Amino acid sequence: MSSTWEEKVHKVTPYTPGEQPKALDVIKLNTNENPYPPAPAVKRAIADFDYELLRKYPDPTASGLIGVLSDTYSVPADQIFVGVGSDDVLAMSFLTFFTSGEGILFPDVTYSFYDVWAGEFRIPYETVPLKEDMSLDIDAFCRGTAGGIVIPNPNAPTGLDAGTGALEKIIKSNPQCVVIIDEAYVDFGAESVLPLIDKYDNLLVTQTFSKSRAMAGSRLGFAFGSKKLIKYLNDVKYSFNSYTIDALTQKVGIASLSDPDYFKMRCLAIINERERSKKRFRELGFDFPDSRSNFIFVHHNKVSGEELFKALRDNNIFVRHFEGERVQDFNRVTIGTPEEMDGLFDFLKKYLENK
Amino acid sequence: MSSTWEEKVHKVTPYTPGEQPKALDVIKLNTNENPYPPAPAVKRAIADFDYELLRKYPDPTASGLIGVLSDTYSVPADQIFVGVGSDDVLAMSFLTFFTSGEGILFPDVTYSFYDVWAGEFRIPYETVPLKEDMSLDIDAFCRGTAGGIVIPNPNAPTGLDAGTGALEKIIKSNPQCVVIIDEAYVDFGAESVLPLIDKYDNLLVTQTFSKSRAMAGSRLGFAFGSKKLIKYLNDVKYSFNSYTIDALTQKVGIASLSDPDYFKMRCLAIINERERSKKRFRELGFDFPDSRSNFIFVHHNKVSGEELFKALRDNNIFVRHFEGERVQDFNRVTIGTPEEMDGLFDFLKKYLENK
Repeated sequence: MSSTWEEKVHKVTPYTPGEQPKALDVIKLNTNENPYPPAPAVKRAIADFDYELLRKYPDPTASGLIGVLSDTYSVPADQIFVGVGSDDVLAMSFLTFFTSGEGILFPDVTYSFYDVWAGEFRIPYETVPLKEDMSLDIDAFCRGTAGGIVIPNPNAPTGLDAGTGALEKIIKSNPQCVVIIDEAYVDFGAESVLPLIDKYDNLLVTQTFSKSRAMAGSRLGFAFGSKKLIKYLNDVKYSFNSYTIDALTQKVGIASLSDPDYFKMRCLAIINERERSKKRFRELGFDFPDSRSNFIFVHHNKVSGEELFKALRDNNIFVRHFEGERVQDFNRVTIGTPEEMDGLFDFLKKYLENK
Repeated sequence: MSSTWEEKVHKVTPYTPGEQPKALDVIKLNTNENPYPPAPAVKRAIADFDYELLRKYPDPTASGLIGVLSDTYSVPADQIFVGVGSDDVLAMSFLTFFTSGEGILFPDVTYSFYDVWAGEFRIPYETVPLKEDMSLDIDAFCRGTAGGIVIPNPNAPTGLDAGTGALEKIIKSNPQCVVIIDEAYVDFGAESVLPLIDKYDNLLVTQTFSKSRAMAGSRLGFAFGSKKLIKYLNDVKYSFNSYTIDALTQKVGIASLSDPDYFKMRCLAIINERERSKKRFRELGFDFPDSRSNFIFVHHNKVSGEELFKALRDNNIFVRHFEGERVQDFNRVTIGTPEEMDGLFDFLKKYLENK
């Protein structure tokens, strides 16, 4: 029996979020935020909100928001789960599906929160190395013995889309566990595995309002799955916190979904800017996996990843640099507005000319 | 090794929140909500909010909100934790401090979420029976061997205040574990143990915006403790979800704290109405523990708890009834506005006359 309270503490190493610079005149391309504002309907929803409603608990089932998600994605309401950002959705999913004691699998180069959740919930895990070209090693995920699998598609920070055919192969090969496909970046040109939830009752598809809907500040994520899967997930969520989505955020989320044209227009603008950026990176001698997300993972033969990261930061341009053997030579650059990207490329051009 | 994904699911029995009736012409006294609106500054904060900020991640440390809490409660910022309602604060605390495998203690009649979190995180626990008069059995908590202790003060659903002297005795007797005092209802006339955090580094005091600040819809809770305790709690929180408090809720919380006079006035109105209600319950033959919260736990010799609950509900008056041997004869009645309480007592008078 432990004799001090401190010995009883569950000690963990937390996730490190990207820097949020306080200065205003920066080019911020480090946290995969959307460079455009949320849908104008969000502004109206906030202006019209009756603050007196806040005295009451919000609808714990967020039924209004789930109803609009149901209409938007043509998925029945009882196959949809919502949470405080997709991090909350994923944390609840790990807690619900991955704590059997059997090891789970995810790629070695991937969203750096997966191993943090594994630590938080004492889940054994094994990482599956990406191939040399940074693409997913599909066959290595098809062993059919894992306790759980989580794969982002497109993967982060590579931006690569594995394709629904390859992902279906993984899901089909692993009926013994839940397979989570984390589609945080899917709206920037990748194909969603959402239609597969009717075919595989062990498939959970997670998405978020943070990137394509420009709502990182609102903390809204969601997931689709079989009725059974969503029921289990909700049981664990209601055992953690009954009322997770506040009343105002429920309204704001509904408003954000009400304008599909705005949504498509902004996604397209980001996709176009990404393709324009690829060309310019290439012209400057960068190489990179062929991203289908709102960021590009770039590498240059003449400058180390860290050196470039620091040079950019010294000039008020923030990108994301990760430690670790396979990724340290790269920087993850979020796609900003054309003006922000011009600022980045103007600097890079001058900087590389002086090398 | 389990062979189906369903065998791997962590199956739990979730907490059942109080009913949220959809009809508008009801007297809702079932979820301990504040009958008055939030501070007027909250209205202005929402109206003035720049929706374009939502495209960016919120400040993960909620430093503005923590700063105002620091000023309001005269506690250094690094001794304050915030979460998505006090349920989130408590869930994170259970996960951080109570998962050593050693059994934890809480009263047998208490907030019904404690055993749910124990189930969620596989924490063994023992309940300590309240005394016959429903007061806390202080000595039974002073054994000095528990893996953790959680006690609400005032207790729910009894409303009884144990007093800081008795609570200090418990904290002092248990240096081997963290002791959580859940002060969700402390602003309605009980004394806070907050000053004791400087004396005992194993004491965590949790509070909420949901009751006394009329902000249940915003999902904001907070906790005070030693620097060390808060650091451990934050590590676990950042390993779960980096960005829990959305940008708008951070502003709304700050606004809510900006008007201490409004806060005191509303708390006093509820305290006065509670004392007036005690008299009227007594006149009608009810007995009850002497509540210091915003609810009264009432019992009547002539009507069973369930019968009264149903009769009230049939007349659009919602109170909370719990199952369980020691509580089934009672109903928990939240203190509403004078008009709402008049409606309740008009009904009760007629109903009991006809018995």
